[in-house]
Amino acid sequence: MIYMDNAATSWPKPDSVWDEVLRVGKNVGANPGRAGHQMAIDAGRVIYKARVAIARLFHLSDPLRVVFTINATEALNLAILGSIKPGDHVLTSQLEHNAVARPLRYLQDKGVEVTYLPGDEYGRISPNELRQSRKANTKALILSHASNVTGALQDLKSLSKAAKELDLRVIVDAAQTAGVQQIDMEEWGIDLLAFPGHKGLVGPQGTGGLCIAQGIDVEPLRFGGTGSQSESELQPDVLPDRFESGTPNTPGIAGLAAGLEFIAQTGRENIESHESKLTELILNGLGDIEKVKVYGPPVKEPRAAVISFNVDGMEASEMGFLLDQVYQIAVRTGLHCAPVSHRKNGTLERGTVRLSPGYFNSEAEVKEVLAAIKTLVEEAR
Amino acid sequence: MIYMDNAATSWPKPDSVWDEVLRVGKNVGANPGRAGHQMAIDAGRVIYKARVAIARLFHLSDPLRVVFTINATEALNLAILGSIKPGDHVLTSQLEHNAVARPLRYLQDKGVEVTYLPGDEYGRISPNELRQSRKANTKALILSHASNVTGALQDLKSLSKAAKELDLRVIVDAAQTAGVQQIDMEEWGIDLLAFPGHKGLVGPQGTGGLCIAQGIDVEPLRFGGTGSQSESELQPDVLPDRFESGTPNTPGIAGLAAGLEFIAQTGRENIESHESKLTELILNGLGDIEKVKVYGPPVKEPRAAVISFNVDGMEASEMGFLLDQVYQIAVRTGLHCAPVSHRKNGTLERGTVRLSPGYFNSEAEVKEVLAAIKTLVEEAR
Repeated sequence: MIYMDNAATSWPKPDSVWDEVLRVGKNVGANPGRAGHQMAIDAGRVIYKARVAIARLFHLSDPLRVVFTINATEALNLAILGSIKPGDHVLTSQLEHNAVARPLRYLQDKGVEVTYLPGDEYGRISPNELRQSRKANTKALILSHASNVTGALQDLKSLSKAAKELDLRVIVDAAQTAGVQQIDMEEWGIDLLAFPGHKGLVGPQGTGGLCIAQGIDVEPLRFGGTGSQSESELQPDVLPDRFESGTPNTPGIAGLAAGLEFIAQTGRENIESHESKLTELILNGLGDIEKVKVYGPPVKEPRAAVISFNVDGMEASEMGFLLDQVYQIAVRTGLHCAPVSHRKNGTLERGTVRLSPGYFNSEAEVKEVLAAIKTLVEEAR
Repeated sequence: MIYMDNAATSWPKPDSVWDEVLRVGKNVGANPGRAGHQMAIDAGRVIYKARVAIARLFHLSDPLRVVFTINATEALNLAILGSIKPGDHVLTSQLEHNAVARPLRYLQDKGVEVTYLPGDEYGRISPNELRQSRKANTKALILSHASNVTGALQDLKSLSKAAKELDLRVIVDAAQTAGVQQIDMEEWGIDLLAFPGHKGLVGPQGTGGLCIAQGIDVEPLRFGGTGSQSESELQPDVLPDRFESGTPNTPGIAGLAAGLEFIAQTGRENIESHESKLTELILNGLGDIEKVKVYGPPVKEPRAAVISFNVDGMEASEMGFLLDQVYQIAVRTGLHCAPVSHRKNGTLERGTVRLSPGYFNSEAEVKEVLAAIKTLVEEAR
């Protein structure tokens, strides 16, 4: 089987990830931060280690400002619903996933104004566009670092800096880039960074989180026991407890810490360059197949390892079905939970076939995938 | 090591739980419900299997109305914040955990009226109390099935039925009982049942959920991609998608399904009777030790396997520390995230020492624990 659906969930994981899930699940099975016994203290340590690794990767000074959630969607909801109030105006892009668009749609019904900046042909916005679209009530820039449909990459550094100059809160969806592309919260001025644990960070599903810059507060989404300030019915103010009510996914977070360790040892830059090479191979290969239309920025421009295409006269779902059934190649077809983005590139009706290679894919696999697509296109004539 | 902190997280888990986490994590690593390829379909099946087992255990007719969350706290927040509006009045007990009390406190600040029914000496409320406290704007009964401090068990069947007659929405926190005590949503008329996956259901941390009875709706807490109705920025209405935005904890839920399978094979009644026996042993044993005060209902009355006590002239934390350090016995001390409950039994200042045996504890272990406590009490003289 060749797995090219890493934009949904990376697979496989490094062995160390499952080893650690198991070690912690079997030996450190208690609740972190709730009791004084040794196993509970060990559980707390496991989770703290993951916070430190996340803070280091994204350049956030205080590991206690890394808040774990079940996935990036929850983190984005916490950032967006916890920051934006009726009467506020926010700027966003046309490359957003429904993890951003649906909370925003919910807020629009409550009197929040949302501007989807068109950007260039591929949806990439510019600092100038921000400056021109800023209004008196503009509170935030909410931005996917990279499109999960086309791989188009925003110039996050310039945009964050420009947004800070405009006094906007910068909320970033790093679903497609965390662990692969460089992200520097402190230097670039990112206020809230949502990340999934199970994609580029190669941790297990059921993990993700929100990094909260110093001085930034949001309203919690849920309230409950945290092991701290137990004498009070008031939600504690201290981080990360304020946002982590209830028992966390300790074994999952332990696996995520192992994933982060794998990235640190491999080198993020090496992962990025491997994925870039595979992406370039795919883009060039698809470009050579007749009737194939590839979406997103041209081959030499920076992008995430996400490639969407269609074949003239062939349904995306048919291509996906045949790749799976005949060639055991796992890709994703359809709308990828991003109607805003599909509207932008004119694929809201038909969707796309999406290839998303990961660090564990090889060049040989990419060549097999390209050959399979070529054969299927030719057979469909 | 003797682990007696099962009210926080049950430990150990059956081996099949970690086997299944690993099998699914390593072989079925994709996103359920998002793509058409084989691995994604297998992931969807794994999760559906868990829904079926939950629905069967709690007697809910439609497995698609089992919604998975990161923990019971999120499920309770979804049930409470999604049901209650400013101007509403709710009835609850004085045995509630902060997973109920903190969302309610948040709602009180928004104009919701909350009555903490005193109940009897141990906080157990009666159908009559419900009838007497019901007002024109009373919308719901929100009730912990059992106290996580004293183990006091509510007569959930009678209370649910009485609440239904009063046309109240019945929201239940089954954190201390799910998987051990009988719960029948359909027959008893429970509308919303929140359960943790990692306690009595012997699944991994990072799992839990909310069972939603037919005809009951709540407002979602988060919005985002679900793999369904991807063409729309509107949150889908279909269950469970409406409440499960973002990638679920597939390996964790797979482990939970294995836990449920273990319970089905062992027999819930057998688990209940084993835990009852251990609880009785502990209550009788503690009763024989001088200077020990046990909280909660007397020995022969039905209760959950949670026992809180204190020793005259000795701090709870000191007892916990010595049990851990000298005897490698893991218990929990302090306030147990339940200030309402501690106020009720007068332990808000000093907390308690809590013993919570589980199915994997033996009578021999209980005897060791009792002997250790006895020695520590005698040495403290």
